[in-house]
Amino acid sequence: MAITSPFKAFTDGKTEIHLGQHVLAEFFDCDPNTLNSLDKVEKYMVDAALECGATIVQKCFHVFNPYGVSGVVIISESHLAIHTWPELGYAAVDLFTCGEKCDPKISYEFLKRKFNSKKATFTELKRGIIDEATMKVMEKPFEIMQQSID
Amino acid sequence: MAITSPFKAFTDGKTEIHLGQHVLAEFFDCDPNTLNSLDKVEKYMVDAALECGATIVQKCFHVFNPYGVSGVVIISESHLAIHTWPELGYAAVDLFTCGEKCDPKISYEFLKRKFNSKKATFTELKRGIIDEATMKVMEKPFEIMQQSID
Repeated sequence: MAITSPFKAFTDGKTEIHLGQHVLAEFFDCDPNTLNSLDKVEKYMVDAALECGATIVQKCFHVFNPYGVSGVVIISESHLAIHTWPELGYAAVDLFTCGEKCDPKISYEFLKRKFNSKKATFTELKRGIIDEATMKVMEKPFEIMQQSID
Repeated sequence: MAITSPFKAFTDGKTEIHLGQHVLAEFFDCDPNTLNSLDKVEKYMVDAALECGATIVQKCFHVFNPYGVSGVVIISESHLAIHTWPELGYAAVDLFTCGEKCDPKISYEFLKRKFNSKKATFTELKRGIIDEATMKVMEKPFEIMQQSID
């Protein structure tokens, strides 16, 4: 990824800069038929990327025997990944984006609706936090930026 | 993903069951030429999957202008994803595995060596935590299982 892409900047007294924002989304109590359909999961993941304004570069999806779909959409702004457990009505989704162009919350809300998920959690992490004094990446783990249960 | 795959079980007085283990790895102070080489990043990510005993299903990699590589290896046990910022010597890597067959720590150590990373962080999350009483997925976010700075 290019450092020339716009940074995500936050102001709470000071400005913070990080390279990537990584959303871990858990979708519970979803429609099992949707989660077990390769066509639907692939379509909704692609649409979720487009909905938030991402540019799709590549995608690959795979259906498992006896249940479940795994897939990834690589976008210019990073990637979206999904693993589904239809028999449990559960899907684990990652929405990794860079720059300010995409809002992963839009993809999250879109997927929650399409999967007919009755409950979901949204956790946004900062990856690659920049030290503004040196403009180098700080050598520490990600930070949790926000978390919600919907 | 199939619930018929073996669960990861942990014992600390009681047994805990979860569907996926998700490692977020941050590699700092890496060799920039390696991080900017599509061929090397792809080879090392594929090898990292094989090293930990995963079965590769599909892969897709993309090189950015002016810098950086993004890529994903879908494995039967979930996925490995990478985004590199060669100009900062930084790579954000996700190692998502299911079942007990794969040890993501092996992939992490392998990549740290191949990227010649002087410092790295490893955080392992539980995704899809099972309530043993009902054998349903608990409707709560991931939990941090372990974190290290190497």
